[in-house]
Amino acid sequence: MRPSGRAPDQMRPISIEPNFTRHAEGSVLVGFGDTKVLVTASLEERVPPFLRGKGEGWVTAEYGMLPRATHTRGSREAAKGKQSGRTQEIQRLIGRSLRSVVDMKLLGERQITLDCDVIQADGGTRTAAISGAWVALRLAVNTLLASGKLTVDPIVQKVAAVSCGIYQGTPVLDLDYVEDSGADADGNFVLLENGNIAEAQATAEHATYDEEALLRLLRLARIGCTEIFAAQDRAVK
Amino acid sequence: MRPSGRAPDQMRPISIEPNFTRHAEGSVLVGFGDTKVLVTASLEERVPPFLRGKGEGWVTAEYGMLPRATHTRGSREAAKGKQSGRTQEIQRLIGRSLRSVVDMKLLGERQITLDCDVIQADGGTRTAAISGAWVALRLAVNTLLASGKLTVDPIVQKVAAVSCGIYQGTPVLDLDYVEDSGADADGNFVLLENGNIAEAQATAEHATYDEEALLRLLRLARIGCTEIFAAQDRAVK
Amino acid sequence: MRPSGRAPDQMRPISIEPNFTRHAEGSVLVGFGDTKVLVTASLEERVPPFLRGKGEGWVTAEYGMLPRATHTRGSREAAKGKQSGRTQEIQRLIGRSLRSVVDMKLLGERQITLDCDVIQADGGTRTAAISGAWVALRLAVNTLLASGKLTVDPIVQKVAAVSCGIYQGTPVLDLDYVEDSGADADGNFVLLENGNIAEAQATAEHATYDEEALLRLLRLARIGCTEIFAAQDRAVK
Amino acid sequence: MRPSGRAPDQMRPISIEPNFTRHAEGSVLVGFGDTKVLVTASLEERVPPFLRGKGEGWVTAEYGMLPRATHTRGSREAAKGKQSGRTQEIQRLIGRSLRSVVDMKLLGERQITLDCDVIQADGGTRTAAISGAWVALRLAVNTLLASGKLTVDPIVQKVAAVSCGIYQGTPVLDLDYVEDSGADADGNFVLLENGNIAEAQATAEHATYDEEALLRLLRLARIGCTEIFAAQDRAVK
Amino acid sequence: MRPSGRAPDQMRPISIEPNFTRHAEGSVLVGFGDTKVLVTASLEERVPPFLRGKGEGWVTAEYGMLPRATHTRGSREAAKGKQSGRTQEIQRLIGRSLRSVVDMKLLGERQITLDCDVIQADGGTRTAAISGAWVALRLAVNTLLASGKLTVDPIVQKVAAVSCGIYQGTPVLDLDYVEDSGADADGNFVLLENGNIAEAQATAEHATYDEEALLRLLRLARIGCTEIFAAQDRAVK
Amino acid sequence: MRPSGRAPDQMRPISIEPNFTRHAEGSVLVGFGDTKVLVTASLEERVPPFLRGKGEGWVTAEYGMLPRATHTRGSREAAKGKQSGRTQEIQRLIGRSLRSVVDMKLLGERQITLDCDVIQADGGTRTAAISGAWVALRLAVNTLLASGKLTVDPIVQKVAAVSCGIYQGTPVLDLDYVEDSGADADGNFVLLENGNIAEAQATAEHATYDEEALLRLLRLARIGCTEIFAAQDRAVK
Repeated sequence: MRPSGRAPDQMRPISIEPNFTRHAEGSVLVGFGDTKVLVTASLEERVPPFLRGKGEGWVTAEYGMLPRATHTRGSREAAKGKQSGRTQEIQRLIGRSLRSVVDMKLLGERQITLDCDVIQADGGTRTAAISGAWVALRLAVNTLLASGKLTVDPIVQKVAAVSCGIYQGTPVLDLDYVEDSGADADGNFVLLENGNIAEAQATAEHATYDEEALLRLLRLARIGCTEIFAAQDRAVK
Repeated sequence: MRPSGRAPDQMRPISIEPNFTRHAEGSVLVGFGDTKVLVTASLEERVPPFLRGKGEGWVTAEYGMLPRATHTRGSREAAKGKQSGRTQEIQRLIGRSLRSVVDMKLLGERQITLDCDVIQADGGTRTAAISGAWVALRLAVNTLLASGKLTVDPIVQKVAAVSCGIYQGTPVLDLDYVEDSGADADGNFVLLENGNIAEAQATAEHATYDEEALLRLLRLARIGCTEIFAAQDRAVK
Repeated sequence: MRPSGRAPDQMRPISIEPNFTRHAEGSVLVGFGDTKVLVTASLEERVPPFLRGKGEGWVTAEYGMLPRATHTRGSREAAKGKQSGRTQEIQRLIGRSLRSVVDMKLLGERQITLDCDVIQADGGTRTAAISGAWVALRLAVNTLLASGKLTVDPIVQKVAAVSCGIYQGTPVLDLDYVEDSGADADGNFVLLENGNIAEAQATAEHATYDEEALLRLLRLARIGCTEIFAAQDRAVK
Repeated sequence: MRPSGRAPDQMRPISIEPNFTRHAEGSVLVGFGDTKVLVTASLEERVPPFLRGKGEGWVTAEYGMLPRATHTRGSREAAKGKQSGRTQEIQRLIGRSLRSVVDMKLLGERQITLDCDVIQADGGTRTAAISGAWVALRLAVNTLLASGKLTVDPIVQKVAAVSCGIYQGTPVLDLDYVEDSGADADGNFVLLENGNIAEAQATAEHATYDEEALLRLLRLARIGCTEIFAAQDRAVK
Repeated sequence: MRPSGRAPDQMRPISIEPNFTRHAEGSVLVGFGDTKVLVTASLEERVPPFLRGKGEGWVTAEYGMLPRATHTRGSREAAKGKQSGRTQEIQRLIGRSLRSVVDMKLLGERQITLDCDVIQADGGTRTAAISGAWVALRLAVNTLLASGKLTVDPIVQKVAAVSCGIYQGTPVLDLDYVEDSGADADGNFVLLENGNIAEAQATAEHATYDEEALLRLLRLARIGCTEIFAAQDRAVK
Repeated sequence: MRPSGRAPDQMRPISIEPNFTRHAEGSVLVGFGDTKVLVTASLEERVPPFLRGKGEGWVTAEYGMLPRATHTRGSREAAKGKQSGRTQEIQRLIGRSLRSVVDMKLLGERQITLDCDVIQADGGTRTAAISGAWVALRLAVNTLLASGKLTVDPIVQKVAAVSCGIYQGTPVLDLDYVEDSGADADGNFVLLENGNIAEAQATAEHATYDEEALLRLLRLARIGCTEIFAAQDRAVK
């Protein structure tokens, strides 16, 4: 029995509110249950130094957690003067995930930065961020297409992510904070709509796991991502 | 004529949505027009080292701006590794303003931290933050009173803040970004409901000003704060 | 009765020793009683990136306090690896104050940096710094005029600053450390010789104040600045 | 055909030289082909603050790369003043991997730090580090057992790690630098001798991959780890 | 011929003004010609962690250069966020030099910090700092003796320092900035009044040197220090 | 009697293993007894900004100590976020020492960086580093000569370094850690093969010393460096 009463393969309610803020070229407030992440996509007509003059674009991400997004207040990374290893690991994952569905030559020499700021945390912030970031990116690219700056869509696929884990011996989908804290193992899966995998990660927290469990987590992730793809569709319509 | 069409002594619409997030002891989303600030009040049963054992509490504030709260993306302070002088100046102002209405002996040896994070910026973020922070603080202290941890209310007054400035020769209330960028002088006034002043600041940006102008800005601030006090009342009811 | 025995509207002795060091284009040791600040004006034939090619100059300031300028030793900011919020707030104020009396187009594409280093502190270091910085700036600009690099004086006014506050219920001028530590409210006023205001700031420390008090502080500041303007005149003669 | 001429399921020569340095409680120089990592295990009779008084131990890791371990010189992280996101991600992985095979209650209130410093890099530095770290940890724990400080062995399993990836369409084992730079996807697998998985990670670099590929990478990792377990056995004998 | 017209073994005028500032337990403004260093000695009734409970005191030093102490403005270390290697090397030298003449057991568990801040630089700032620091230390210890906190003087010797170098082939004493910039080799010698050496350093800048030259530099240093010891005597009388 | 049983003028065994790693243009593992330092020479076809366009090259050094090179683990400088004063002092010394034997005009506009990383420490790490760095530099320059990029050898001399000190009243050569910790005075001497001095430093640690002692230390250093020069010869053959 899950603490939330959900079935093992049941996602929390997914909400994706597009255009949550007005300055960004794309923005959403994405929610996986009580986890709420504001994602903005910012378009700049320049690329990082290592790409200059190559005719290719870049997609990158930054991640932050508001100090009181969590049950107890965490210290502000800007005040501490550095981003934690966890923050850097997450923002690298988000950037890689989104780049896996963008044709950089079609994007041209411009950069899109996805800022993912966690307003409220209840487990799965990085997967909510990836899933919402795809919508923010979609909205930002739509403005490029609408304005005629782009004529061919550089987004080649839909991408979504969800966490899965083994909680009290049972593989479950979309862990909330209580499950996440006590899980034997947990993982994050970043999937494309065509079924391909952009990233699979599964980590033993309190107990190692076998190959069968890894496959079961992946199957759960497929179930969850199907639901997220539908929510992304609704949000961009 | 103001760019927004407002009268010189007209505030933007004020919105204060209480309990915007669920983990903090107090939280609001405060809006002055398109300026939106999330304020959370976090209660901790400890005080900073300089106050330990003195039987007094502490109220402090931190301030941040999401990278794409603004028209063009700013860099993330956590990634740069330090808070700007502007950020530090603002968070010191917010902390001082709220402390001016709290009786620290009545609060007892506990600390309340007000995190003010700007979700969307259109001028006046620090004054919206102060005005919203009072509500978040009020909500947090209410939980202390409700739980019996406090029996006497340590909040002795209501406090609100608003910006005023001289725009194209005319003193105006509650500057938005367009006015703020072009103002000859601007200031921030932090007022108590009894009419007293907690902080008055007025700075020449493009032109110095005379005593008459200073008084006119203060009068405008009184008009604005009267409206904010009413909005605070509605939010905590 | 003030601890120093001064009358409420009495400044401490003002001393401004020009050319205190020899390398800087302008330098002074300014004293307000026991507060001693070394100010140097350094001229560079370049401007910050945001002004390049605009035909305008820039005036900026940095502020520091020697570790044992104070009653008990403070830690060295260079050793701690960052400037405090207080330091940044003060240096921003000094820079703004001096810029309010310089015509940047007349200055041309060059930058003058005012380094204000407190040798000994007894309250009012920022106002002594501003008042001395005007003289250092004046001396540096004089060398530009003397050398023919400038033919029209870009300094359009004299600027001075002084602190005022409410000490034991009485508004007093030019607070020393003892008064500053115990004041109910204190403020800093940056005034031009023509009577205009460049900056007015008044903060409740232990008690909020009313409009009448604000005006009284401003009147005291006018008295003090009149005396400072005379001292500036003597120093540059 | 692999650039090195190896078969797809062929490891590079594995070398594990125990006691490479003399001060550490455990130390090895581990080589996967031209990748050489010095790992030391340092024992301290204290635990981090979050574990004090709980009767449990801790195992953690730090990772570094000498500036000229690589083909072209990289900048020194100590000189830049911060560790990269990549460094932090790797040292978190190493620490988690080793903790998965240690019973912290049996270890008691002491900490073992595994310093993994890359002397020469040719792909797979993190997996060589994990594989060598187990031996360094084994040697350090042996000294505890020999001295009588521990009577029951807290190391419950052997752990090893290897990278796998899809290179020019073919899943291959133990990527060297040339393969790593050009792989479509690559991953790191941390396996226990009993076949269980401590960590599985597979990332699309230039092309996403399907479930079949993920399983094939895992099978290759099992082949590689079998060989590493044997090398670990030889090293600790 | 030296640029200043001095004889090879001629010091610049030495000035040591005691009690230059009023808060420090000891303070001097020391001048070697145009080099001016403010040194304060701050007494604290505590020692660094590594000495706690050992019944011994500590003497340490910090060094800084005001941004415009030099011919062209240097950046402020507090603003850059770190002390340069040169700064750290100098403050370590000053600390060691002063510790060489203090009996730490006699000092007891207290720390004296010597802050050496260069007001104006013209070569030899570290040697002027050491020479002045001895006087500041002497004054601070005198207050301990006068107050009865100490009954036996922990200062066992006088220490002074001077730079020497080989300028255009000739060994010269007390290099000024012009000589220092062009010297083939230069060195710093820290000597005790009894003739002993606390520190000898001589570095080839543009040309290596032989043993004879090293000895000649040491002889010059003895000449200079004799003069400095006399100036120290005058300052503390 | 020395703890190691060595005669006062006896070096520890010197080992210099060339080409210890494969990517660097020059590399050695240098050992003075149990002190082991890996030195790599990295060649870059660019110079620092202050030398651009001057037709001259640059030689610089960086120094690091692996956390468990020492008897007890030290913290990692990259994790602490800054290099200690000791580290910076040492790397400045290494750079100066090597520059003293290179003709920068002959080297041309290219930079050679000597990375000196201490694998195991037992006293004398900086002198081992300098002595080994000359060999790494020699190897790197040899590749330039072999490739025809240079036709005239820019290395004009051999340079070596050794520590000497006064241990229990006796001047001794090449201090190991036990001697170094307890020495009354110690020093580092950087000598050229022609007998000239590049750097002489001798510091009183627990007792000041006289001129005779300084000369004796220098004589010991000559004995040690003769042996090091021979080892350098063997390594580059």
